[in-house]
Amino acid sequence: MKKQRKSSGIIIIGNEILSGKTLEKNSNFMCKELFSIGISCEEIAIIKDDKSRIIEKLNVFRKKYNYVFTSGGIGPTHDDITSDSVASALGKKLILNTEAKKRLEKHYADDVLTKARLKMAYMPENSILIDNPVSVAPGFEIENIFVFPGVPKIMQVMFKEKVRSFDEGLRYYKKTVSTKLSEGIIGEYIEKIQKKFSSLEIGSYPYFKKNAFGVSLVIKGDDDLQVTNACDEIFNYINSINGNPEIF
Amino acid sequence: MKKQRKSSGIIIIGNEILSGKTLEKNSNFMCKELFSIGISCEEIAIIKDDKSRIIEKLNVFRKKYNYVFTSGGIGPTHDDITSDSVASALGKKLILNTEAKKRLEKHYADDVLTKARLKMAYMPENSILIDNPVSVAPGFEIENIFVFPGVPKIMQVMFKEKVRSFDEGLRYYKKTVSTKLSEGIIGEYIEKIQKKFSSLEIGSYPYFKKNAFGVSLVIKGDDDLQVTNACDEIFNYINSINGNPEIF
Repeated sequence: MKKQRKSSGIIIIGNEILSGKTLEKNSNFMCKELFSIGISCEEIAIIKDDKSRIIEKLNVFRKKYNYVFTSGGIGPTHDDITSDSVASALGKKLILNTEAKKRLEKHYADDVLTKARLKMAYMPENSILIDNPVSVAPGFEIENIFVFPGVPKIMQVMFKEKVRSFDEGLRYYKKTVSTKLSEGIIGEYIEKIQKKFSSLEIGSYPYFKKNAFGVSLVIKGDDDLQVTNACDEIFNYINSINGNPEIF
Repeated sequence: MKKQRKSSGIIIIGNEILSGKTLEKNSNFMCKELFSIGISCEEIAIIKDDKSRIIEKLNVFRKKYNYVFTSGGIGPTHDDITSDSVASALGKKLILNTEAKKRLEKHYADDVLTKARLKMAYMPENSILIDNPVSVAPGFEIENIFVFPGVPKIMQVMFKEKVRSFDEGLRYYKKTVSTKLSEGIIGEYIEKIQKKFSSLEIGSYPYFKKNAFGVSLVIKGDDDLQVTNACDEIFNYINSINGNPEIF
């Protein structure tokens, strides 16, 4: 039986993104990682540090997608409410995880394990820890929800390590044909090609560079040969109308 | 009577973002603009070029928020399906807008107004055009939905001009106190201050720079005096524990 591609949704939590203070890049990192191991990211939601909204979004996503990844809101301050929200969404108790506490005690042995810091060891009951090799305070997984911090450098290390274990060997195949012709000129043809290769996803992305503009056509799919065939057809067509195609 | 702050939601449409190919920055631009005129952005959704999903998201957002802004999917190619989706979400016909057609005819007078380009003049019936001074093809508004292109330079000019008309003079007041103490040390105190100034939003954001780390506390609210008072209290506390606070 053919393996089924897994789906995922990303929930980014943080007021600072919605006020425009912070340019959010965590989801881009996650999407790249997921794409590289053939997991589809279906949707990204960016929401406030608001318990009822986090719960609402978690409950939609966890039923809709195979994996739900969150980023943000698991630090030591009052606005870090993700763990509490995950517990509520799943109808579970928020408890002090003894292993997480042990790690924090060791890490802060020469400093103070304040009440604020200890907060980072509270998780929904039965959570599995996600190791944090950078700043120790762990993330956690429970059911199909995977909870990561918002600090990019820490999240990236943890996420990369974690999703590696989801790799089932499925890949996306992707080729790009670029041309200096505009979308308006090749648009009709590309629509026809998309219909012919209906199992593939053909995206059309205009680019604007200094003294140059044009289109990149990205052909993506599960089948290497189909992608190659579609790519060749597009290349030949653009070549035939003197569009100087290039393949990447 | 006190004016009510308006809410908004942003829908970003494009497969290229979910595959990680494109780092999405349009929502950050929009959030900054909205913040500057005192409109709250409550949520950002990033979704695929998929008609049923776009319709679903539009129908949730337009009932939930005062303004809905979309970006992406109004170009000339087969994967540009936003206009069609907006029409369907509102139960309206997608029609050829004669004014939009006129503008495209003029713009492409020396070139070809291909069928693909003409596609950009199709909109839900009764749409109001949003001017595009960069590449002519207009966006549109209908009910509380405002439809913008995805190309950042074009979207930015159009968005800025449009949302200016929504400015009702309401502002957010914001101050930042930074310290080299860590969140784990000041977390408990900040929680108390947040409870005391419950109408304000106090965000705690750790920063990591070369040879330095610490926390920025962002105090935000509708009332200038309250923000200043909270800021002063935080400053004095951090100063009293030798945390070298700075105000921005």
